[in-house]
Amino acid sequence: MKRYLMTPGPTPVPEDVALYMAKPIVHHRTDEFKKVFDETKQLIKRLFKTENEIVMFASSGTGAMEAAVSNVLNEGEKAISINAGKFGERWGKLIRAFGGVNLELTYEYGDYAKVEDIKALIEKNPDVKAVYIQASETSTGTFHPIDEIGLMLKEKYPEVVFVVDGITAYGAIDVETDKWNIDIGITGSQKALMLPPGLSILSVSEKALKKIEKSNNRFYYFDILGELKAKWGNYTPAVSLVFGLNAAVKKILDEGLENVFKRHKLLAKATREAVKSLGLKLLSRRPADSLTAVYSPEGIDSSEIIKLMKSYGVEISNGQAHLKGKIFRIAHLGYFDKADILMVISVLEIALKKLNANGNFGEGIKRAMEILSE
Amino acid sequence: MKRYLMTPGPTPVPEDVALYMAKPIVHHRTDEFKKVFDETKQLIKRLFKTENEIVMFASSGTGAMEAAVSNVLNEGEKAISINAGKFGERWGKLIRAFGGVNLELTYEYGDYAKVEDIKALIEKNPDVKAVYIQASETSTGTFHPIDEIGLMLKEKYPEVVFVVDGITAYGAIDVETDKWNIDIGITGSQKALMLPPGLSILSVSEKALKKIEKSNNRFYYFDILGELKAKWGNYTPAVSLVFGLNAAVKKILDEGLENVFKRHKLLAKATREAVKSLGLKLLSRRPADSLTAVYSPEGIDSSEIIKLMKSYGVEISNGQAHLKGKIFRIAHLGYFDKADILMVISVLEIALKKLNANGNFGEGIKRAMEILSE
Repeated sequence: MKRYLMTPGPTPVPEDVALYMAKPIVHHRTDEFKKVFDETKQLIKRLFKTENEIVMFASSGTGAMEAAVSNVLNEGEKAISINAGKFGERWGKLIRAFGGVNLELTYEYGDYAKVEDIKALIEKNPDVKAVYIQASETSTGTFHPIDEIGLMLKEKYPEVVFVVDGITAYGAIDVETDKWNIDIGITGSQKALMLPPGLSILSVSEKALKKIEKSNNRFYYFDILGELKAKWGNYTPAVSLVFGLNAAVKKILDEGLENVFKRHKLLAKATREAVKSLGLKLLSRRPADSLTAVYSPEGIDSSEIIKLMKSYGVEISNGQAHLKGKIFRIAHLGYFDKADILMVISVLEIALKKLNANGNFGEGIKRAMEILSE
Repeated sequence: MKRYLMTPGPTPVPEDVALYMAKPIVHHRTDEFKKVFDETKQLIKRLFKTENEIVMFASSGTGAMEAAVSNVLNEGEKAISINAGKFGERWGKLIRAFGGVNLELTYEYGDYAKVEDIKALIEKNPDVKAVYIQASETSTGTFHPIDEIGLMLKEKYPEVVFVVDGITAYGAIDVETDKWNIDIGITGSQKALMLPPGLSILSVSEKALKKIEKSNNRFYYFDILGELKAKWGNYTPAVSLVFGLNAAVKKILDEGLENVFKRHKLLAKATREAVKSLGLKLLSRRPADSLTAVYSPEGIDSSEIIKLMKSYGVEISNGQAHLKGKIFRIAHLGYFDKADILMVISVLEIALKKLNANGNFGEGIKRAMEILSE
């Protein structure tokens, strides 16, 4: 069975990047590695649109999220977390795990954070030290207005550290780290960066570093200052992934950052319009360009759709938590192009037809074709 | 630009086969290689449905075609060649190049060989030594009735050597080598066998071997008897490709030969019906299940369609010789599955639309979706 991976991470690895990663392993305490390591950080800065320091951990994205909590918050310090999905919920868990006071703003899955809510909560709690949010909430395919939130914080509460999990955003959606006042921006290798999992990346501002310097929390492996002091990574870096990251970001910059964002915007639009033409409803009120979450038709378990699509080799994702069985998620971040969207939509249509749930047979793919031929 | 190769050879190489080929090179004069070499020949016999001897050359498919002429025909001996396309024409060139007398049966591109024509020509030329034909003529996407021809020869002219170029047939279409009296069956690595180019394969019957033993023609590298006498290939075999062939044929046999043929039949049907729903005409009067040749709409150069599809990363083929610009060819042999057909048809529709030549926009992909959801 030929397989077509269309899940929101891991995502497909381009053949040239995979080959580059297969090159002989270089020892990590060598000038050869250091050169690539340093260059890769510079490349990441361009991708993140930041002048801030870059730190990489050999870990999944959650490792970087942990570092952004354990290094920043001290015991008893207050932080706001935005919980509008599975990954927002994780911020709260991390804050509590490291002794912080979690002021959680909860939104329905599919809804997005409101800047006024955050502002009001800080007004009531002027001792808030940090705000934790996702750029794109992967469990719902929602893009939070991190630009508005960042600019509000900059104007009203310049001391608050603004932490953005951009794991399904950086490299797919234009996230202007510095312009939007993002103190810590986070991503992982296995999303828009088109790599296997195993590498997490943070950008850290001067302001965040100052806060981190005063940390008295408990951590060892995820040590942001330690990584910055080390010449070439504090512990053994994921050498192959660093090489892969170097190749992948160069590939992105070769295509042109703005072209990459435009491509994601177009693929997202085609996907959204196609499913709407099939009479389906989007979950998100503010959809991200990196993945599309769609309600399963009335009375149909989304697992059935996913299973049928898998019988065509096409792998998409189910909902998480209480949305399991209720929605399905189609990814279009990273190594995806127009032809992939045409494929996934036509296979989706076939799956719906087999479930007697496609009254508009042919309309979804037609709409996608229209948009992608513009 | 993400690329999707849909040309009738080379065809995409499955990831697991590519990885298997990347294993460290084994020296060719070792027991380790001999074991794989011998096993691979046995696997090929199953694929070819033959008990005949198998010979492999480090060459493109044309090398095996040359061997089947130079080793079989002596100077001045008569052979019939079927010319219904670019590859049929090649048989005639080879026969003349090695001093044979070429009795050519020419058919219009798109037409197929008639068993009565061959019978009549041998009746007039009872000293004909061999018949050379394609199973699937790649330039036109036509499948010749090689079963009828083989059985007629067996009954009426059992001394005539029947040579079938099955380069775009073996592994995609059910070719019953022994049952259909095929004395020499030929294929290449880069078609339905899903490998990079560089390896040609022949099956050779007892009868063909007896004729070859009496050869006084000039050849050295393409020496069928020499290869059979050598323990592990007469000259340096294409070691990686032999390993790849072993993995690829196992992959085919794992899927099940009949399932593989059924898959190709289904993909071919969906492709043909889809283009017909767009009002387009097939070139072939007897279409092969390995590729589909389609006339470009009136007044439109097929190069334009191909170029537009390439701007979506999808690579299909133009016509050859006088059909260049008049037709396009979509391959579906080897590592292809339903989702690939959905992709190529929707991209074809977009290309036609951009050329204002798609009055039935959406009908082609809808038809393909219908067939592939059955």
